[in-house]
Amino acid sequence: MADVLSDGSLNQLFREARTHQYFDGREVSDEQIHAIWELAKMGPTSMNQLPARIVWCKSDAAKERLAAHAAPGNVEKVRNAPVCAIVAMDVDFHEQLPQLFPHGNGKAMFDGKPEARETSAFRNSSLQGGYLILAARALGLDCGPMSGFNNAAVDADFFADDPSWKSNFICSIGYGDPTRLHERSPRPDFGAFNRLI
Amino acid sequence: MADVLSDGSLNQLFREARTHQYFDGREVSDEQIHAIWELAKMGPTSMNQLPARIVWCKSDAAKERLAAHAAPGNVEKVRNAPVCAIVAMDVDFHEQLPQLFPHGNGKAMFDGKPEARETSAFRNSSLQGGYLILAARALGLDCGPMSGFNNAAVDADFFADDPSWKSNFICSIGYGDPTRLHERSPRPDFGAFNRLI
Repeated sequence: MADVLSDGSLNQLFREARTHQYFDGREVSDEQIHAIWELAKMGPTSMNQLPARIVWCKSDAAKERLAAHAAPGNVEKVRNAPVCAIVAMDVDFHEQLPQLFPHGNGKAMFDGKPEARETSAFRNSSLQGGYLILAARALGLDCGPMSGFNNAAVDADFFADDPSWKSNFICSIGYGDPTRLHERSPRPDFGAFNRLI
Repeated sequence: MADVLSDGSLNQLFREARTHQYFDGREVSDEQIHAIWELAKMGPTSMNQLPARIVWCKSDAAKERLAAHAAPGNVEKVRNAPVCAIVAMDVDFHEQLPQLFPHGNGKAMFDGKPEARETSAFRNSSLQGGYLILAARALGLDCGPMSGFNNAAVDADFFADDPSWKSNFICSIGYGDPTRLHERSPRPDFGAFNRLI
């Protein structure tokens, strides 16, 4: 039976973790990038669809290419991150379901239904994005997720050979510089956005 | 500087956690439900939008009401869960931004743009759903997320007085019965769905 994680772990994952725009100069290794995926991939998706496709922009050339499509306020954030991940989705994820979900006929449920695929890919790749952020934090790293960029331009630039891949959001990852944080934005109490019935 | 969480914690959150359809009979307290929110709300959303709205169906009456809109294979899963959360989104989340994001004019970016609001609410409420699942696991609980239900019927039934609230997915929460798990579905290696450039 599982216990409640330690306060230190809960603080690191949730309570004290912050979105970072500035990093302290330390690199993120290829091994750390693989380790993030190895954790994040274990999170649940509908029928094990795993629609997320991730492009980890780590070289200066890759970051420059991505920064060119960022909103003005995000250009430097992309450029200065140790790595910036494009969290994308494959709207033809159903082609993989015979392997990923061997005990059901998931593919038939989505054949010829592009709108249902788009909805499911968007929901589930976003869930996987949440797992990725918390996996990175669990490994001692900080994240700076962003949706301020030109999705169509990123798709044209990075996914010309994979037209079923669509960018969802981007996320810089590294060791945050705590001296450059803003004050934390407010979080509402339970009663504001929840009902218990 | 943050450390890597212990193997026990990483196992509990990611590696050994499983989606559960059957629970062992123990209740989930109101305090635990509040505790899940208190952790999950700390996760990042774009401009602190926090678009998720959560209805925790805990009473038998609430679970019956929700089960009536579930896909046939999910009816008993909803009915038998200690609590089943409707993870919804408020597509008019921008009305809250003057309070939630006081240092920017986020509301003006979304006024009169229902499609942009829908996209952002869907992405960010799904991210929050991912935080919720991992928050529950961090507190020693198990989850069974589901998207097999009639979203329009749930919205009509539960959100008649809040027409800007739209259901995203539902998630049963409790203490899973490990004796009734299926074999885990496969997870791909890094090279299958990732690129490092």
